[in-house]
Amino acid sequence: MGRTSDAEQRLIEEATSLWYSRSYADVGVSEICDAAGVRKGSFYHFFPSKRDLALAVLDRHAQTFRERVVERVAAHEGTAMERLDLVGQIGAEFLAETAEATGTVCGCPVGNLAVELSTIDDTLRRRFDAMFRERIAFLRSLLDAAVAEGSLPAGTDTDLVAESLNAYYEGILAMAKTAGDAGLLRRLAPLAIGLVRAPEAAPVSS
Amino acid sequence: MGRTSDAEQRLIEEATSLWYSRSYADVGVSEICDAAGVRKGSFYHFFPSKRDLALAVLDRHAQTFRERVVERVAAHEGTAMERLDLVGQIGAEFLAETAEATGTVCGCPVGNLAVELSTIDDTLRRRFDAMFRERIAFLRSLLDAAVAEGSLPAGTDTDLVAESLNAYYEGILAMAKTAGDAGLLRRLAPLAIGLVRAPEAAPVSS
Repeated sequence: MGRTSDAEQRLIEEATSLWYSRSYADVGVSEICDAAGVRKGSFYHFFPSKRDLALAVLDRHAQTFRERVVERVAAHEGTAMERLDLVGQIGAEFLAETAEATGTVCGCPVGNLAVELSTIDDTLRRRFDAMFRERIAFLRSLLDAAVAEGSLPAGTDTDLVAESLNAYYEGILAMAKTAGDAGLLRRLAPLAIGLVRAPEAAPVSS
Repeated sequence: MGRTSDAEQRLIEEATSLWYSRSYADVGVSEICDAAGVRKGSFYHFFPSKRDLALAVLDRHAQTFRERVVERVAAHEGTAMERLDLVGQIGAEFLAETAEATGTVCGCPVGNLAVELSTIDDTLRRRFDAMFRERIAFLRSLLDAAVAEGSLPAGTDTDLVAESLNAYYEGILAMAKTAGDAGLLRRLAPLAIGLVRAPEAAPVSS
């Protein structure tokens, strides 16, 4: 059982890394099995299909986001606005580190798969959407805290702003990948405060 | 020659539409030939490879952007800030129209291909990057005009803001595709003014 579980984990890890650095369609089950040192017959014991492996990879990405972003931000002592700022900083660190490790600027692991697959696999699309909803809810909780602390106007539409922040970060990661520019998030993240304080986000601000 | 040229155009049009609604990897040369009513032997007469067809499709997207966005915005009588606002409105119209026509929210035709292919084909990545550079330069020209009209502070880093706007729009289109939400750009575009007026974009504003 120990070895079996290892094989399953290795398949998830290799798929995570290979899909991130290339694309879902470009890396098939055979290549993932080879990289993980797992026979193809065993693959289908763990995952009935490539899509099932994708769902496991997405679970792993969701867990990584909770550990590296949500928990770290929650543990940060400071104001809600500082914690919000930390989200962009963590993202910028992640992008620079993975670019250093892989030699390529790969963007957002979840965003890449979402853009590639959302119109051709509705099961996966719903999973991507749920993951982004979770991120948006997290951003919204920071914005609500900032409103409660008096750093943002009471009328701020924190749901709308959270959606805009999530879209902004995803767009930057996509453009970083396209430009091969690992520093783009660091350069553009500071402007996110403009979305947070956009007058359109608090039309009835007190 | 007339018929030959028609076949080439049909291949470009079918590839444009099929890749946009699904993905580059999901639609191969055979399917594009079938859709266009062109024999596979003829395909390679026009395009030595699938990538060459992709480059022709990207040329078409660049031309479409110039006609539907750049020229329409340039023709708009009004302030630079109004013309800037029009960019988001045109994008929102495009997203809603294509969703209506295809029954699917497909995001950004160029952004989709850029995210899918940038790390696996450097020739295409450079072409995507050049296309986004052209869009950023266009946005910057509107921002520079707004500075000249006195609507934005003289110290505004218009290049940085233009990059942030392009990333923001791309991110919204990616999230619209993921959520299957044709109205997302209409809802989030108004917050773009926050990026334009972000204090971080004009640190030495007069």
